[in-house]
Amino acid sequence: MLSANVSVVIALVLSLVGIGFVIYQMRRVLAEDQGNQTMREISYAIQVGAAAFLRREYTYIAVFVVVVALIVGAFINWQTALNFVVGALISASAGYLGMYVAVRANVRTAAAAARSLNDGLRVAFGSGSVMGMAVVSFGLLGLSTMFLIFTGSDLVSEISFLAGFGFGASSIALFARVGGGIYTKAADVGADLVGKVEAGIPEDDARNPAVIADNVGDNVGDVAGMGADLFESYVGSIIAASALGVTMKIMGGNTEGFVGLPFLIAGGGIIASLIGTFLVKTEENATQEQLLATLRRSVWGASGIVLVISALAVLLSGVNFNFFMAILTGLIAGNAIAFFTEYYTSYTNKPTRSIAEATETGPATTIIQGIAVGMNSTAAPVLIIAVAMLAALWFGWQATPAEVLLTNPNAAVTAGLYAVALAGVGMLSTLGVTLATDAYGPVADNAGGIAEMSHLPPEVRERTDALDSLGNTTAATGKGFAIGSAVLTALALLAAYMDTAVIESLNVLTPTVLPGLLIGAMLPFLFTALTMTAVGKAAKEIVLEVRRECKEIPGIMEGESKPDYARAVDISTRSALREMIIPGVLAVATPVVAGFLLGKEGLAGLLVGSIASGFLLAVMMANAGGAWDNAKKWIETGEMGGKGSAAHKAAVVGDTVGDPFKDTSGPSLNILIKLMSIVSLVFASAFGAGLLGF
Amino acid sequence: MLSANVSVVIALVLSLVGIGFVIYQMRRVLAEDQGNQTMREISYAIQVGAAAFLRREYTYIAVFVVVVALIVGAFINWQTALNFVVGALISASAGYLGMYVAVRANVRTAAAAARSLNDGLRVAFGSGSVMGMAVVSFGLLGLSTMFLIFTGSDLVSEISFLAGFGFGASSIALFARVGGGIYTKAADVGADLVGKVEAGIPEDDARNPAVIADNVGDNVGDVAGMGADLFESYVGSIIAASALGVTMKIMGGNTEGFVGLPFLIAGGGIIASLIGTFLVKTEENATQEQLLATLRRSVWGASGIVLVISALAVLLSGVNFNFFMAILTGLIAGNAIAFFTEYYTSYTNKPTRSIAEATETGPATTIIQGIAVGMNSTAAPVLIIAVAMLAALWFGWQATPAEVLLTNPNAAVTAGLYAVALAGVGMLSTLGVTLATDAYGPVADNAGGIAEMSHLPPEVRERTDALDSLGNTTAATGKGFAIGSAVLTALALLAAYMDTAVIESLNVLTPTVLPGLLIGAMLPFLFTALTMTAVGKAAKEIVLEVRRECKEIPGIMEGESKPDYARAVDISTRSALREMIIPGVLAVATPVVAGFLLGKEGLAGLLVGSIASGFLLAVMMANAGGAWDNAKKWIETGEMGGKGSAAHKAAVVGDTVGDPFKDTSGPSLNILIKLMSIVSLVFASAFGAGLLGF
Repeated sequence: MLSANVSVVIALVLSLVGIGFVIYQMRRVLAEDQGNQTMREISYAIQVGAAAFLRREYTYIAVFVVVVALIVGAFINWQTALNFVVGALISASAGYLGMYVAVRANVRTAAAAARSLNDGLRVAFGSGSVMGMAVVSFGLLGLSTMFLIFTGSDLVSEISFLAGFGFGASSIALFARVGGGIYTKAADVGADLVGKVEAGIPEDDARNPAVIADNVGDNVGDVAGMGADLFESYVGSIIAASALGVTMKIMGGNTEGFVGLPFLIAGGGIIASLIGTFLVKTEENATQEQLLATLRRSVWGASGIVLVISALAVLLSGVNFNFFMAILTGLIAGNAIAFFTEYYTSYTNKPTRSIAEATETGPATTIIQGIAVGMNSTAAPVLIIAVAMLAALWFGWQATPAEVLLTNPNAAVTAGLYAVALAGVGMLSTLGVTLATDAYGPVADNAGGIAEMSHLPPEVRERTDALDSLGNTTAATGKGFAIGSAVLTALALLAAYMDTAVIESLNVLTPTVLPGLLIGAMLPFLFTALTMTAVGKAAKEIVLEVRRECKEIPGIMEGESKPDYARAVDISTRSALREMIIPGVLAVATPVVAGFLLGKEGLAGLLVGSIASGFLLAVMMANAGGAWDNAKKWIETGEMGGKGSAAHKAAVVGDTVGDPFKDTSGPSLNILIKLMSIVSLVFASAFGAGLLGF
Repeated sequence: MLSANVSVVIALVLSLVGIGFVIYQMRRVLAEDQGNQTMREISYAIQVGAAAFLRREYTYIAVFVVVVALIVGAFINWQTALNFVVGALISASAGYLGMYVAVRANVRTAAAAARSLNDGLRVAFGSGSVMGMAVVSFGLLGLSTMFLIFTGSDLVSEISFLAGFGFGASSIALFARVGGGIYTKAADVGADLVGKVEAGIPEDDARNPAVIADNVGDNVGDVAGMGADLFESYVGSIIAASALGVTMKIMGGNTEGFVGLPFLIAGGGIIASLIGTFLVKTEENATQEQLLATLRRSVWGASGIVLVISALAVLLSGVNFNFFMAILTGLIAGNAIAFFTEYYTSYTNKPTRSIAEATETGPATTIIQGIAVGMNSTAAPVLIIAVAMLAALWFGWQATPAEVLLTNPNAAVTAGLYAVALAGVGMLSTLGVTLATDAYGPVADNAGGIAEMSHLPPEVRERTDALDSLGNTTAATGKGFAIGSAVLTALALLAAYMDTAVIESLNVLTPTVLPGLLIGAMLPFLFTALTMTAVGKAAKEIVLEVRRECKEIPGIMEGESKPDYARAVDISTRSALREMIIPGVLAVATPVVAGFLLGKEGLAGLLVGSIASGFLLAVMMANAGGAWDNAKKWIETGEMGGKGSAAHKAAVVGDTVGDPFKDTSGPSLNILIKLMSIVSLVFASAFGAGLLGF
């Protein structure tokens, strides 16, 4: 029977092993050949642009962090405020490190791909694994350290302080996802609209003034944004499970094992992910299928290992073995959602093909079919999550001793909610490797851009395209895990909030709950509207700048003079960050305002509503966007008339609509629902009946 | 202090007055001049097509009604089954009558518009008022009669039987809305795609084989479908309020007044609506603004009258005067939602103009901006409904005597829910006239088609277009009321269900509730996906038929031979009805299956989830569709390059996407959420803990 402190120390040691791997892997990647002078110059421009964006983004966020820390310190306690700052700092560091490597790995991947496909994969995946392992190791290290620092306090307080850590991570995640998401899509649209459509130059052409901004966008959106997103999922799931572990005191025994178990699983997951990354081995001249198989082997291998470690952790923690079943449920559910995500968004299957077929009758039917596919695709994940929750709740019930149930029938629900939280931890335990298979995609994408701009032989671009398309498939898996874990974590945080706010039973017929629920369900819609229009506004400014440069700088189109890349980067940065503020503040402020107006129960209703509708919109938008993207890619393989046909033009419209769906608004919703839950948890003790509660 | 029976008898008498008006008005409309021979022939073809559709639709529905009646009779009781059949029959009759007049009023409106704009308005509005008054009078007559038939039973049973009536009405509404909605959009798309785009002939051209089907569609979708939709809203709100009236026994006094009050308000609303229709008086040469003003005067006049009558009814029923405030709240909330609906969808305001401006950068930005506007527009209605609910709950609390609160603190919630239901009744009390201002639009639209096809002078088309565009504005008001009342009614039905199923407090942390809630939130998405793809499939068949006719029948394009209109109508009918079945069965079967699997509490969670997400999707889709439509119309006034410009083409794409949003999927969601609630209410007594409940 390990005490919570011992479990956390074990987790801390394992996270240090992970950090060792990050340093080793980073050195390996950075030691790779950087290619010729042109390539280096382009890569350098991207590095400068990305660093400028992050620097300015972090300046904005720093202001926010200081203000919020003061508020939290004043109204809650200084320990939570400190945790908030540390959580924000560590999340920002993990994002910075991931991007630091990514913007340097792109040119190295291009150079390696010039040698062979496998060399390209090795470098790109190496950089992805730095990101993946950095996120989990930094997250677990930070959580463990903060837990141990306050070890003098009682267990309840220790854990409640950690909510601040989660809040800090969530704040960074939201701003990074929204800001990065706006940037990447605005630059993309700007580059495409003027470059491809108006000037008729190909993608990734050095004559396009927005081409560097476009490549920077892949890094700040898909690397830094996604890293921060999953960082907060990861720490959020651990915090929620540990917080609910404290409520397990009703089981009669001590709660140490319940609190420590999530840390042990997370630590085991780091080792499992580490072994998983080493399973990525490819033969020379491997086919696309073989590459996919090796990535799958690494993910599944890690899952197998984490299961064994979890079983051991459950035994060591001295908790009932039914909780192991809950972890298993989480892992299965994550994989099942990933399977359906791929089914709905891959062009080898019917749904995406139905969109491609709808292009025949023009853009309108393409859009209608895409939205229908997106909406249809919500059924499977919802049913999977519902079944997983029912299963976890059942295991929790099974784990409750009969004598406890006799005196406290609610104990089964408490145990069940803890099991739901563990399922979320289980789902994310292999994040180190699943994120690696996801995060290498943008590196390969960038490598392709560099290959194009520096006029490398066409087979290099073909190889990076193969890697990129492989990345799109594995990214579908990553999205499945991200969405599934977001719901489970948000629900677990909701349960932790209700426990802290002392809401024993949330009756939907309480006067403030139904209005709260409706308002909560509306927030993801409003948030999506804000982020989608933000992309449009930012894109417009970039379009105007690109047009201006094309007109005012002579000789750009002839390739005789260089466009002012830096100015396009700067404008993208400014407009994306400006547009990030309103949705960000809305997300953080709403639960606080609602808590004071509607009271603690109305706020709980609001959270329930936002989780439900946010989950559905997130799945719908991510899958519709992915399906449009791949429908276009399918047509580009020569189907339906191929590139340049009317069908292809309609597919491009679908893809353009899908871009903010899948890369800006959809993923931000995952963060929104968790952020609102964790803000509520942090401020839980401050809310009473509410001004409008009666 | 009126007894429930006396109140219902008064309502019955008032409904007969309404029926008298319907007969009088129908004779007046049918006595109008029918125009020349060509016009009569075209109108006759539309009449035949519409009748054929309704006949076949009702055949399908008859099978469904018989099967369900047997199930209800076997598992619940024969009285509920009888109510179910009568509710279905009366709803079908009201829809049939409304359409019977509409397909005859179209040609008469065209002939009247040839004389003057005001004559056109008089005939079209006359036909709309037949529909509006038929819906409310038939509904109230049916409900009152069924109530009085079972007057020997106790009050609780009497009211519970009426749930069957609502179920019958909802079933017809769902099939009529979905079937009619698929038909109208499929025929529209089919006619446009081949006629306008491929063959290059103008809209409503007699050479287009789908032109009659297109005009039939306006009637079966926008007249019969909408009539059935609001019929069920109307009776649903009365049933829900009366059912909750029974729960008011906890107030200590007798419940007769609470049960009878909704009937009295509805009866008063019939008289108010009747007076309202007479307020529609226009001067010769009235401007568009003056026409709108007269329609508004009639709606507001009716609202004023209904308030006076309601105050009287509250006094006569002997209930606390705070309940009058709840009715007032409902009326204000309905008008407020209508105001915002118009704000977001009218091209005189910023949101719709922002879509028009987005057309400049092509169809993709047009779609993104439209979806953003739709999502943005959800905020106001949700906040209005939330505030209205809070207000109603507060009035309910105020109405609860202090001595009752002492012994039963839940009494305030019960009274509050009854007040919420009354707010819904108040919102719909003037339906007779609001529906009239809404239902005349399709008649004017049809009149325009007939004018075009029979080559009447262009000023006739201009006048019918003016009427049609006026109808679009008033339709926005109608939609506001429809959506707002749907939520309040669905919530009231949910409360009635919980009372019948003996769920005293629905705790969201009960193991089955959260999974139920997520599944419930998913259903509107799935349902929307099904109805949107149904439009696509049905449209495809029509496109193929129109293409075939254009190719195989010689001389069509030269106007030398007539296309086979009947065949296009027949194909539209068959495909629309076939596509109607799966979504319809899904809606009815899901609550029953969920009730048995998840148990009565899981089902309640499912209803909460479906109401929340269904409400939001319905608002989003209706407003996005309306805004796209009007953005296109704004461009057609000459803005952004006017008709034929690239901006206009992008706007057409938006409008085409918006068509199934606003005319098929969006409005069907209103019915879906109420239908699922009423199915649950009917079967409430049959559900227990559920197979998966533990």
